Amino acid sequence: MEALTTAPKGTSALLSLKTLYTSIRQATEAICTKLQPEDYVAQPVAWVSPPKWHLAHTTWFFENFILKEAIPGYKIFDKDFHFLFNSYYETAGRHLGRDQRGALSRPSVDAVYAYRRHVDEAIVQLLSHPINEKFEKTIQLGLQHEQQHQELLVTDTKFIFSQNPLLPVWDEEKTLDHLRQAEDLQWLEVPEGVYEIGFYGEGFCFDNELQLHKQFIHSIDIRSQVVTNGEYLEFINDGGYQNVRYWLSEGWEWLHTDRIEHPMYWYKQDGERYFYHLDGLKKLDLSLPLMHISYYEADAFARWKGLRLPTEFEWETAARLFPSFFTNMVWEWTKSAYSSYPGFATDEGTIGEYNGKFMVNQMVLRGGSIATPEGHSRVSYRNFFHPQMQWQFSGLRLAKDKKEFSF
Amino acid sequence: MEALTTAPKGTSALLSLKTLYTSIRQATEAICTKLQPEDYVAQPVAWVSPPKWHLAHTTWFFENFILKEAIPGYKIFDKDFHFLFNSYYETAGRHLGRDQRGALSRPSVDAVYAYRRHVDEAIVQLLSHPINEKFEKTIQLGLQHEQQHQELLVTDTKFIFSQNPLLPVWDEEKTLDHLRQAEDLQWLEVPEGVYEIGFYGEGFCFDNELQLHKQFIHSIDIRSQVVTNGEYLEFINDGGYQNVRYWLSEGWEWLHTDRIEHPMYWYKQDGERYFYHLDGLKKLDLSLPLMHISYYEADAFARWKGLRLPTEFEWETAARLFPSFFTNMVWEWTKSAYSSYPGFATDEGTIGEYNGKFMVNQMVLRGGSIATPEGHSRVSYRNFFHPQMQWQFSGLRLAKDKKEFSF
Amino acid sequence: MEALTTAPKGTSALLSLKTLYTSIRQATEAICTKLQPEDYVAQPVAWVSPPKWHLAHTTWFFENFILKEAIPGYKIFDKDFHFLFNSYYETAGRHLGRDQRGALSRPSVDAVYAYRRHVDEAIVQLLSHPINEKFEKTIQLGLQHEQQHQELLVTDTKFIFSQNPLLPVWDEEKTLDHLRQAEDLQWLEVPEGVYEIGFYGEGFCFDNELQLHKQFIHSIDIRSQVVTNGEYLEFINDGGYQNVRYWLSEGWEWLHTDRIEHPMYWYKQDGERYFYHLDGLKKLDLSLPLMHISYYEADAFARWKGLRLPTEFEWETAARLFPSFFTNMVWEWTKSAYSSYPGFATDEGTIGEYNGKFMVNQMVLRGGSIATPEGHSRVSYRNFFHPQMQWQFSGLRLAKDKKEFSF
Amino acid sequence: MEALTTAPKGTSALLSLKTLYTSIRQATEAICTKLQPEDYVAQPVAWVSPPKWHLAHTTWFFENFILKEAIPGYKIFDKDFHFLFNSYYETAGRHLGRDQRGALSRPSVDAVYAYRRHVDEAIVQLLSHPINEKFEKTIQLGLQHEQQHQELLVTDTKFIFSQNPLLPVWDEEKTLDHLRQAEDLQWLEVPEGVYEIGFYGEGFCFDNELQLHKQFIHSIDIRSQVVTNGEYLEFINDGGYQNVRYWLSEGWEWLHTDRIEHPMYWYKQDGERYFYHLDGLKKLDLSLPLMHISYYEADAFARWKGLRLPTEFEWETAARLFPSFFTNMVWEWTKSAYSSYPGFATDEGTIGEYNGKFMVNQMVLRGGSIATPEGHSRVSYRNFFHPQMQWQFSGLRLAKDKKEFSF
Repeated sequence: MEALTTAPKGTSALLSLKTLYTSIRQATEAICTKLQPEDYVAQPVAWVSPPKWHLAHTTWFFENFILKEAIPGYKIFDKDFHFLFNSYYETAGRHLGRDQRGALSRPSVDAVYAYRRHVDEAIVQLLSHPINEKFEKTIQLGLQHEQQHQELLVTDTKFIFSQNPLLPVWDEEKTLDHLRQAEDLQWLEVPEGVYEIGFYGEGFCFDNELQLHKQFIHSIDIRSQVVTNGEYLEFINDGGYQNVRYWLSEGWEWLHTDRIEHPMYWYKQDGERYFYHLDGLKKLDLSLPLMHISYYEADAFARWKGLRLPTEFEWETAARLFPSFFTNMVWEWTKSAYSSYPGFATDEGTIGEYNGKFMVNQMVLRGGSIATPEGHSRVSYRNFFHPQMQWQFSGLRLAKDKKEFSF
Repeated sequence: MEALTTAPKGTSALLSLKTLYTSIRQATEAICTKLQPEDYVAQPVAWVSPPKWHLAHTTWFFENFILKEAIPGYKIFDKDFHFLFNSYYETAGRHLGRDQRGALSRPSVDAVYAYRRHVDEAIVQLLSHPINEKFEKTIQLGLQHEQQHQELLVTDTKFIFSQNPLLPVWDEEKTLDHLRQAEDLQWLEVPEGVYEIGFYGEGFCFDNELQLHKQFIHSIDIRSQVVTNGEYLEFINDGGYQNVRYWLSEGWEWLHTDRIEHPMYWYKQDGERYFYHLDGLKKLDLSLPLMHISYYEADAFARWKGLRLPTEFEWETAARLFPSFFTNMVWEWTKSAYSSYPGFATDEGTIGEYNGKFMVNQMVLRGGSIATPEGHSRVSYRNFFHPQMQWQFSGLRLAKDKKEFSF
Repeated sequence: MEALTTAPKGTSALLSLKTLYTSIRQATEAICTKLQPEDYVAQPVAWVSPPKWHLAHTTWFFENFILKEAIPGYKIFDKDFHFLFNSYYETAGRHLGRDQRGALSRPSVDAVYAYRRHVDEAIVQLLSHPINEKFEKTIQLGLQHEQQHQELLVTDTKFIFSQNPLLPVWDEEKTLDHLRQAEDLQWLEVPEGVYEIGFYGEGFCFDNELQLHKQFIHSIDIRSQVVTNGEYLEFINDGGYQNVRYWLSEGWEWLHTDRIEHPMYWYKQDGERYFYHLDGLKKLDLSLPLMHISYYEADAFARWKGLRLPTEFEWETAARLFPSFFTNMVWEWTKSAYSSYPGFATDEGTIGEYNGKFMVNQMVLRGGSIATPEGHSRVSYRNFFHPQMQWQFSGLRLAKDKKEFSF
Repeated sequence: MEALTTAPKGTSALLSLKTLYTSIRQATEAICTKLQPEDYVAQPVAWVSPPKWHLAHTTWFFENFILKEAIPGYKIFDKDFHFLFNSYYETAGRHLGRDQRGALSRPSVDAVYAYRRHVDEAIVQLLSHPINEKFEKTIQLGLQHEQQHQELLVTDTKFIFSQNPLLPVWDEEKTLDHLRQAEDLQWLEVPEGVYEIGFYGEGFCFDNELQLHKQFIHSIDIRSQVVTNGEYLEFINDGGYQNVRYWLSEGWEWLHTDRIEHPMYWYKQDGERYFYHLDGLKKLDLSLPLMHISYYEADAFARWKGLRLPTEFEWETAARLFPSFFTNMVWEWTKSAYSSYPGFATDEGTIGEYNGKFMVNQMVLRGGSIATPEGHSRVSYRNFFHPQMQWQFSGLRLAKDKKEFSF
């Protein structure tokens, strides 16, 4: 995805790269322990990938960018895998579209796990000896990439299960009970001023978090907690989905084209609301954080409240000012469109080639979710999705301008 | 699919229904012996169903139309299966579209085979005692239905495998070598006259083969053999796909919209032609029967030859006149649109409810293919597909008007 | 459209070709007298052409196939017109799709009428002297072609007006009052036998009416009159559009995709039914012939009645047997798919090039409508449209099998 | 469109509102003097409106928001016009989609001009006496709205003409010759600092230009002139449209889906480049400003140059710093997505109801074009379109970060 820019010096002092590698790779497979072979194959929509593809694609990353280059005479596991699990393959006449990943019954799940074993052994072997800084950086990047796919593995598989009218239980232990919110909402004040935005310090970051630069922020109040199911249900019950005045024009069109009447994974039966999660279909818990909403829904809810979403700069500043602010359970939609920071530059090589290419028509989300691997996100981390997407664990936080503007 | 109309008296004398049931049910599973669990799930396009669905749907037929009615207090295997494997389920709010069958990773393949075991045992038990004629008829119909799905199981699974850029070998023993055609083409003459068309005699037939009625046929010559790959390659090499004058208007549009340049499963690499079949990708064998063409291609080829396709009535009459005529390896497109015979009537009950509903925009094919179960087809059998479909083992036979018309 | 095949010897004896030419060309323009310039431009859907296009295209036919060939040194009126008003233009890079005819504001209506004047003068001049038989035939064909476009001019313009929410009155004198049906329905019997089908005698016919050939017909009863609005309203009131058992599978899908609940041009306001025609929106007259229905609706209505549509051969035979049968006001859907007659052959030249190319996925209609020019149709005339089309003046007649089949 | 927020006090001192009204309304009609009635009707794509619709819709604005409210007992010109020319009509059962405006042949062009006469007389009459401030503001807004439609009238009509393969000359006097650029490109420096952004002073502005607020800007260089056709042609000749590395991911997809190979209105014949404008098809003039490009093309060109687009804040600041900067002939794409300013608020009433509803998925353009009415735009004016749109007179200006970032 994005390029590595600073070396993880601090990390390597604490934990050897080999140990880190093994731990992160195992974490990916741990997500899949309760899947059956058939669960790895399905692709109900083009923007969701089958679990098998995630397992193989992240492996291909290490084989292609490390093993092929670092080990003279390295024999690739299977040349067909290179073709299938590269995200971008343009071989004439046999192009596999992104929406055709669900058509691949072969290679089998067993073969994909064998592929992982093969590559893992070679990487672990490689890391038993000193390696040069370039490869170290690329392995770090590969692990960050693997963690991003861990999150997609959870969100995509949840979506795949949800397409089954049986709404299967994936893992009955994966409840959301620990996320219940107390009701002591507070407004936190961010004072007007010039603030520094972007990544600094040691450790890894993506290139879209650089360069550290300045933004002027007008004073605002911002909520100490994200919005709950209970608050959002009031919006629904007040006819929010039927009232055009709360909605962006394209959001209103989306509601009607896709027949949206509530967040994704909400169900209604006999007048009762339900919510589908990894532990199956349960009654909607009003004290849980709202999740699985689109930007359109986040924006409409805020208008209904007479409030607004924060910008990503306001969010980042608040997170730096208030230690307890960034304890997130959902990705939070901001009102900032995804764009480059001043001085943004991309790497020269293959990995860096495509860095900025998603910077249009997407909105920035900040924070992290229950599906985000521990330690993967940070205060300067920028996630981004199209405004209609609901399948991530996405919610919102409210802000308001501190005072009337007067000049 | 269609309703049973005459009792299979002859058959039951030769072979008990229980034996027949067991044999046909086993034949279905025999098709799947070389499949892996992942192969049972994929659905690359809406008009193809995953193997798992075929296995379960045919089983549901027996559970729903026999066991539920014939056995007091019969406990259905799983109520969700009833919902999933009925072809037409309209449960509000949880409708599974035909194009969503590939989204079902659960129930697992093992669960589907357990379902088959459960139903088979109950049916075999039932058939250990005399049953009334109505159930006997419905079981016969269920077995015909099962055989139709055996053919779909082959054609759908071939299509699913072909969507994989690896073009996997399904079963290397399933070659087509035994189908090679000798070059002794002959023209057979059908003399002018009034002929009887439709099913007669004992044994099973579908309602669309009734009533036996009369058609006037003008004298024609018809080929003793179907067209081969070699003959069709001449058409391609003569620029047949680039010359609008051979094509129906909608066929020409189809060529360009779908970018068709040859029959399905033909490939070209380095100037060489290849053909994909169950035994993998092989060089195109010119002496094999042409297969996997649409009606548009069949019609265009015949025009290029200055000839035409036979009507289904001409085909049936020739098949009755010439014993060696009906030794088919491919379904043969006729120039007859699928319509009802005079006096056509449908059954009253649930099974017969939808009998004539496909009689528009489809063309009749006669004969049978290498995927058709032994004994399933017959001289009066009417298959039908939309004119653009290529995924069946479909070819053609040529005819010509015997003489100039003069009145 | 289709090729001329027999010379109009009888006609030319009665009426000189020059007079005929002038009369038919004027009849086209007479249809347009109440149009304003803006009415000539609009193209609301791809399968409807703007009036201006019809006026110019029919003129182009005479310029291109007669004047350019018959008059040495003939200077075409405007080379751009040749490009615009040919139905099939494939000039690379500047292709005008069929659905882009409404994008042509220029040439203006005045310019198109000037084009007509120019060509008419040249043709009339040409016809002041003897011409060879080939050109005479082509002019005859051009006049038949012009008459087909006269009918399209009426049906297309009615559709264009209907897209305007104001539902403008085109011509308040064009009422349908004279079409009211008396209630003396009769069943006419067609006895079993071999009948001759197709055109014979003198005068013009299209090639799809040839060759005269034989069809076996089983005995049927057929109604002396077409179905009325009143009869069809009973079907609607009985829930006909909500009951899947009456509908072809593709018809049912069409109902739901296009949200069809009644024939085209029917409206419902405050519980009252209205019908839109050239004379504006009027209360639905139950004694008028039913018109503007699709094949799907015709077929469903017949099933609801427990009856069926006649084949085109049954229709033609009845029309020959009963003198009063063919007094049609609507095109009548038959259950015959459009296909070629035995011995069908096309002309060699440009005009005949595309003769059979529409013979798939369309259903035959017989008779003629209030929009059909006097003398244009005949007992062997075959009209054809896709089964979902409603915009023609299309209705139906009911038939039933005379007796139970027994062999 | 957007709501009036500050009263036009300065303007009314110089020029009476009545004179202003008459002058702007006449300017609209002056755009149409060379149109023929047929030109007013066509709507080739949904996002373009027919000229007739613009003329009537702007008139409806004055009738609906002024005359109906300000004149007791005012009789509306035609109630159907209210239905047709309101942008948002939701009358059940007779909804006219935005893409159906080209289906309206009636009311005629004459009727629309009569409508304009009628409303103009009433407004002029009204303005002969003192009116209250609210109506004065709304008339001012209506005139701004009229001017926005003047620009659309030019861009839409140009697009309509371009869909005609004849590429008609609209007005041969409307050349672009006066726009030729001298080659003295300069880089202007904007120093780092906090700047005020937004509208201030007297006169009219839209609500999206408010509130005046602060932005931190890092130092950049920005070009004194926009990019020319000559510069862009180098990009094309260098294979810019074939090289994925310059393109946003969605831009690359757009190129291939819509088969884009150059700006809109560029043509290539016999190796020569041409450009279509109101004065017809002319050889491409390399010294003219580049126009009719999408955001994707603007962004790709800048990447190819190793530079970037300015943000809208950088653009506005440069325009305030350098008097000669804002002499625009094209709308300039900026890298800013369209969003609300801090403190943004909308009016309560009907007019203000929908103010912010376009603030997603659109990019801001600054400046103005040859089609923008004199005096309509200003330094704080924010135009916005979807990134794929080319039909506006849209070009770009280049910027670069002044120095490496270092903290």
